[in-house]
Amino acid sequence: MSEPVDPLRHCVAQLARLPGIGDRTAARLTYWLLRQDPEVADEIAGAIASLARSMVRCSVCCDVATTNPCRRCADPARDGAVVCVVERPQDIVAIENSGGFRGRFHVLDGAISPLDGIGPDQLRIRELLARLEGEVAEVLLATDPDVDGDATALYLARLIKPLGIRVTRLAHGISVGTELEYADRSSVARAIEHRRDM
Amino acid sequence: MSEPVDPLRHCVAQLARLPGIGDRTAARLTYWLLRQDPEVADEIAGAIASLARSMVRCSVCCDVATTNPCRRCADPARDGAVVCVVERPQDIVAIENSGGFRGRFHVLDGAISPLDGIGPDQLRIRELLARLEGEVAEVLLATDPDVDGDATALYLARLIKPLGIRVTRLAHGISVGTELEYADRSSVARAIEHRRDM
Repeated sequence: MSEPVDPLRHCVAQLARLPGIGDRTAARLTYWLLRQDPEVADEIAGAIASLARSMVRCSVCCDVATTNPCRRCADPARDGAVVCVVERPQDIVAIENSGGFRGRFHVLDGAISPLDGIGPDQLRIRELLARLEGEVAEVLLATDPDVDGDATALYLARLIKPLGIRVTRLAHGISVGTELEYADRSSVARAIEHRRDM
Repeated sequence: MSEPVDPLRHCVAQLARLPGIGDRTAARLTYWLLRQDPEVADEIAGAIASLARSMVRCSVCCDVATTNPCRRCADPARDGAVVCVVERPQDIVAIENSGGFRGRFHVLDGAISPLDGIGPDQLRIRELLARLEGEVAEVLLATDPDVDGDATALYLARLIKPLGIRVTRLAHGISVGTELEYADRSSVARAIEHRRDM
């Protein structure tokens, strides 16, 4: 049915690797690309290729960034006494957009999830503990309000409170079951305002 | 909020150009790419970039292909007496998979659609007429069974029948409203078997 090396089928197969993109959608996207000027495919491909090359992990907060340390970690105007712990890099954007927080961040890169085989060792908890030896007076846990996020918060609270550091959790102004990434900014702001001791 | 040149936002913006991919989905895909090995992004980007570079239009049938003329047009085993006219390259796959056709193809690159501002001049009708000066005895119209596809078939029938060539249309074994690309292969096979004169 096909030439030995078929760039069309290859493109369909590669696009179908993306999460939520099935074979049919991948084929639609491929044929759409074929109908555009070649520059469109080049620009999209260039953006994807440069993503991995130009983004690094900040060695302080573990966020994805273009510099190490990242812009936020290098910003002296931020309050170093409070560290907000999130599951994913995109959660930082939700917190920042709320305008309710001017401290520092730490990205765990997931949550403890026994069902998915993710334990504490797979998360960036070692990097978090290394940061707590300085000026940090409070750790604000902003993991998702679901089973995994709650379990992770509990695990971290038990680990950090013995160090004499205040551990707080985002208030459940965010409706249970909603992922932080998709919460509206006023709910996020209220959740920061109503954070509670653990 | 962001570095002057932010490859992450750039990637989100580029992915959001794809049809059916909104800003949120583009962000999800981008963060997913960041969590993979860099090779994954490189492979996907490479497949997209090589697509436009390596695919050409067959100057005979107007299909997208890696060679010109394409593999099907260069195949002497195919029956040159019947040309099947389709709207899109991917429609050829549906016809081929049905196993009901061993003639040649022609891709119109769309259908007449006054609402979308697409007239006969935007379709590859000139290329089709140029092919009819040889051995062609029948033109099988396989445009979609919708308003645009029917209008296109009618237009072509009026153009081609005066040339003394038999003009047929895929039977409506394909349910009205379904696009050819998504029809199951036995319906497509029946539609080929029941094609009718126009």
